[in-house]
Amino acid sequence: MTRLDEKQIISLFQRIVSNRKHTHEDVETFRIGRKFGVLKTDTLVFSTDVPPGMKLEDVARKSVVACVSDFAAKGVRPLYCLVSISIPRSFSRSHILRLARGFRAASKEFGVRILGGDTNEAKELVISVTMFGVADKIVRRSGAKASDSILVTGRFGRTSAGLEIILGKRKSDKKFASLAKRSVYHAVPRLEFGIDAAKYMTSAMDSSDGLSTTLVEMSAQSKKKFLIVKLPADAALDKFARMNNMNPLSLIFNGGEEYEIVITARQKDVIRIKQIAKKNGVPLTEIGHVQNGSGVFLQGHKAPIRDLGWRHFSN
Amino acid sequence: MTRLDEKQIISLFQRIVSNRKHTHEDVETFRIGRKFGVLKTDTLVFSTDVPPGMKLEDVARKSVVACVSDFAAKGVRPLYCLVSISIPRSFSRSHILRLARGFRAASKEFGVRILGGDTNEAKELVISVTMFGVADKIVRRSGAKASDSILVTGRFGRTSAGLEIILGKRKSDKKFASLAKRSVYHAVPRLEFGIDAAKYMTSAMDSSDGLSTTLVEMSAQSKKKFLIVKLPADAALDKFARMNNMNPLSLIFNGGEEYEIVITARQKDVIRIKQIAKKNGVPLTEIGHVQNGSGVFLQGHKAPIRDLGWRHFSN
Repeated sequence: MTRLDEKQIISLFQRIVSNRKHTHEDVETFRIGRKFGVLKTDTLVFSTDVPPGMKLEDVARKSVVACVSDFAAKGVRPLYCLVSISIPRSFSRSHILRLARGFRAASKEFGVRILGGDTNEAKELVISVTMFGVADKIVRRSGAKASDSILVTGRFGRTSAGLEIILGKRKSDKKFASLAKRSVYHAVPRLEFGIDAAKYMTSAMDSSDGLSTTLVEMSAQSKKKFLIVKLPADAALDKFARMNNMNPLSLIFNGGEEYEIVITARQKDVIRIKQIAKKNGVPLTEIGHVQNGSGVFLQGHKAPIRDLGWRHFSN
Repeated sequence: MTRLDEKQIISLFQRIVSNRKHTHEDVETFRIGRKFGVLKTDTLVFSTDVPPGMKLEDVARKSVVACVSDFAAKGVRPLYCLVSISIPRSFSRSHILRLARGFRAASKEFGVRILGGDTNEAKELVISVTMFGVADKIVRRSGAKASDSILVTGRFGRTSAGLEIILGKRKSDKKFASLAKRSVYHAVPRLEFGIDAAKYMTSAMDSSDGLSTTLVEMSAQSKKKFLIVKLPADAALDKFARMNNMNPLSLIFNGGEEYEIVITARQKDVIRIKQIAKKNGVPLTEIGHVQNGSGVFLQGHKAPIRDLGWRHFSN
């Protein structure tokens, strides 16, 4: 039997199901009159998506965050949400209450109304969240132009460091451990920033599949070269990597599960985006710029940054 | 640990999540300008929803049928579809190809465009299908009026008989076994009929949770008594029940998985609905009528037909 990784499965599926070349996007869109309907579905599976020690309230929240982050990256406000949960027989009333409270809190946190959903029994907890919104247009993955700046929200590498710390594999100082673990248990998608800053973005993508995957995808769809000159990480990550004899670049580029936004924008608009980030309390780093050509390169390195973000099935 | 059945879980969830009294409907609706957006999500779980011997193409189709049938009962054409599949590691490329072909065929059969979706790895196959449509209004569960007729599409009891035959538990003549098994493997939702006849329905509901559950829900939401005078089954089901010493009423009322529509309509409109059914090749039976009062009763029986449709978790 030939095993396929998630990207191959998606491609295979889309080619067969929709019988046409499909351009991957963070969300799906279709016409409603003069506007676009925006839909996204994302599924959380307990055995592959839930780190040890995560509270059920946070599991519910994480399933919502994944969709919210995709809307954020496209500059669209999600309005309505459906939740389909498949629950193992061993779950008690109190387990279900905790999940429900997590959904209620997330609904409030992101201003998305949960309309209803579906419950089932399954061998493990599986939560599918679908969100709907309406937009005049979305920010695409494919719009980067030569001489655009490349920016990212947040810090990268923390989530994979956090997961390693949670798994008890690595040592860390207390302060970084706390930040890193929080980034795993309680990721904060950049919804208000994404909506406010969308008009200044030439392209954007949710980074949750990993920074390298995201950059490679945007570069390929835009048919441009992405040159990275600055890393979106802090000294604490470097220290953690040194303490554990790890490559910080691998943590930063190949981690995944950072619900951040990778953005390209005209240089003249960077100042406006920075102001919006500041207003929303969102860390923003200008990490590089777009050039004619192809591939994603880190300054000082000859080889391109390959698409090495975390994938389902391949590990 | 207190176990809850599916209805209790849904109620608990909706009460906590949406913080308000929720009227159960086949689909969720929300305003888009002067129209309504219609959304529905339905999840198929391999261990609980897939009968032995079902082809993967038909598994994919069944996950689509469940949503299509809900749209049919509300008189709304589903336009777009998202599919989220969680696949066990043991699935090969050919398994995935068969699922994808099933989705493509179902997309064509029901005229619903699959926009995209999500793939994951899980301990068992779980498929969440979400559909979207636009409507001026939907047929509600709550609109039955005194002296309305009660009608149903299709035949009831066949699907539960078919499942028993598939499981090797019962004997049957060949012709009935073939029809009954087909109703399990290849249910036909009444989409075109539902859309054409919607304007003549005072209330309607998809019957897939079982005929008794459906009638009890419509009667309760409409605050009316439903009197059943005729059974939507044929002589072949009676014969099957006799051969196996089973109660045909139990097969008819408490089976489930018939993707039919239960309808109430003004007596004067019944003729029009019958014409539409005939045009669409859909069997239609007038099974009773609505009266002031409450509960669902079968003529000649004193006790009400209780809500005994099949529920997840409770068996």
